[in-house]
Amino acid sequence: MNLAKVIGTVRATRKDHRLEGRRMLVVQPLTFDREPAGDPLVALDTVDSGPGDVVIYVSSTEATIPFRPGDTPTDATIVGSVERIDTDRGTWTRSSR
Amino acid sequence: MNLAKVIGTVRATRKDHRLEGRRMLVVQPLTFDREPAGDPLVALDTVDSGPGDVVIYVSSTEATIPFRPGDTPTDATIVGSVERIDTDRGTWTRSSR
Amino acid sequence: MNLAKVIGTVRATRKDHRLEGRRMLVVQPLTFDREPAGDPLVALDTVDSGPGDVVIYVSSTEATIPFRPGDTPTDATIVGSVERIDTDRGTWTRSSR
Amino acid sequence: MNLAKVIGTVRATRKDHRLEGRRMLVVQPLTFDREPAGDPLVALDTVDSGPGDVVIYVSSTEATIPFRPGDTPTDATIVGSVERIDTDRGTWTRSSR
Amino acid sequence: MNLAKVIGTVRATRKDHRLEGRRMLVVQPLTFDREPAGDPLVALDTVDSGPGDVVIYVSSTEATIPFRPGDTPTDATIVGSVERIDTDRGTWTRSSR
Repeated sequence: MNLAKVIGTVRATRKDHRLEGRRMLVVQPLTFDREPAGDPLVALDTVDSGPGDVVIYVSSTEATIPFRPGDTPTDATIVGSVERIDTDRGTWTRSSR
Repeated sequence: MNLAKVIGTVRATRKDHRLEGRRMLVVQPLTFDREPAGDPLVALDTVDSGPGDVVIYVSSTEATIPFRPGDTPTDATIVGSVERIDTDRGTWTRSSR
Repeated sequence: MNLAKVIGTVRATRKDHRLEGRRMLVVQPLTFDREPAGDPLVALDTVDSGPGDVVIYVSSTEATIPFRPGDTPTDATIVGSVERIDTDRGTWTRSSR
Repeated sequence: MNLAKVIGTVRATRKDHRLEGRRMLVVQPLTFDREPAGDPLVALDTVDSGPGDVVIYVSSTEATIPFRPGDTPTDATIVGSVERIDTDRGTWTRSSR
Repeated sequence: MNLAKVIGTVRATRKDHRLEGRRMLVVQPLTFDREPAGDPLVALDTVDSGPGDVVIYVSSTEATIPFRPGDTPTDATIVGSVERIDTDRGTWTRSSR
């Protein structure tokens, strides 16, 4: 799983019916130093994320698990809203952003 | 999921029978600044996309979900036609392309 | 899915029994300008491909779909033999190779 | 599977319910010379790993296997704690770290 | 599927029980010119491979197929021992190594 920051939304009225009612968020992957890591991508959401939130997202087939038993064609889904990170590089907490 | 622009088509008469009747489109992945991101690839379509359309596509096994219950050997499928993108870098709408 | 050119074969007598009778081809991934893209890889075949053929192959779990209902341990399978490609960069047809 | 070193933890109270009770560890992928290889990522744990441990983790859908029969949305899971590595570059044992 | 050379072993006594009894080999991915391609990784084995062997391995979920019907958390598995490779760059046979 990777760290990312929510930076926007995508609107697509014409889409696969299995995506109806799902919010598509634009997320910028981050390093654990909160620096951008590669290009932004589109992820579905399971934790009511909003712009600026630091989140954890899963990639690949696992991204469909939060929406089971239904089949949802997604390869990236936000599964947690991050409050605190402790690594050998220091501690980060949401309030410190 | 990633952003891409439809830039062409591929014709392959001799192919796995599970791909019969499926249009194969050539899509150029894009950054959220609408710049090319890497090399084009071949994707199946679910939303009647045409050349020039900005779309969202899924990769990997999830790409087979829109075609279930049948088994379709694809690792990239267009699942939405993009109308509007709002990020901290600004807003893009289809009419502005 | 990606474009590739068949450039060789691999022989492995001692192998997982689920691969018995399957031809292993060496394919060179190509850009849509027919330039090499990255290193060659080994793919199974479903369309009687031969050296020099330009093909479409699928990666990851989807590569096992053409061999179902059996389980086949492959992560790359050729699913189409390409006859014509039309993109905003021009047209390529098999006879013009 | 890849080698990594556990370097931290992530706390996310608001998360997909399938992740309740699972520890999220930050791991730094390593080369077989124990040098950092790319950016750290978040992995679930199955072997009571702690900071500094050298571990083996699996990626992609396989990362969900240790948690079956339940469905767990993870794409990286630690599956072994490494004691000894022998390669043509030499031998490494846990006590020598 | 990709080419690799077996270069070592990993010992992990504390591991997911589904990996009990499975040998973990260190493999160095190779190009078809037998040059190293990227960093080594850990793979399970199905064909009694030993150090120095040139093998074919599968990645991702397909790597679990040789161990079915059981569930095995691996994302890389050796599925063939290579005897001969013929490409437009020449022929390689095991005896010539």
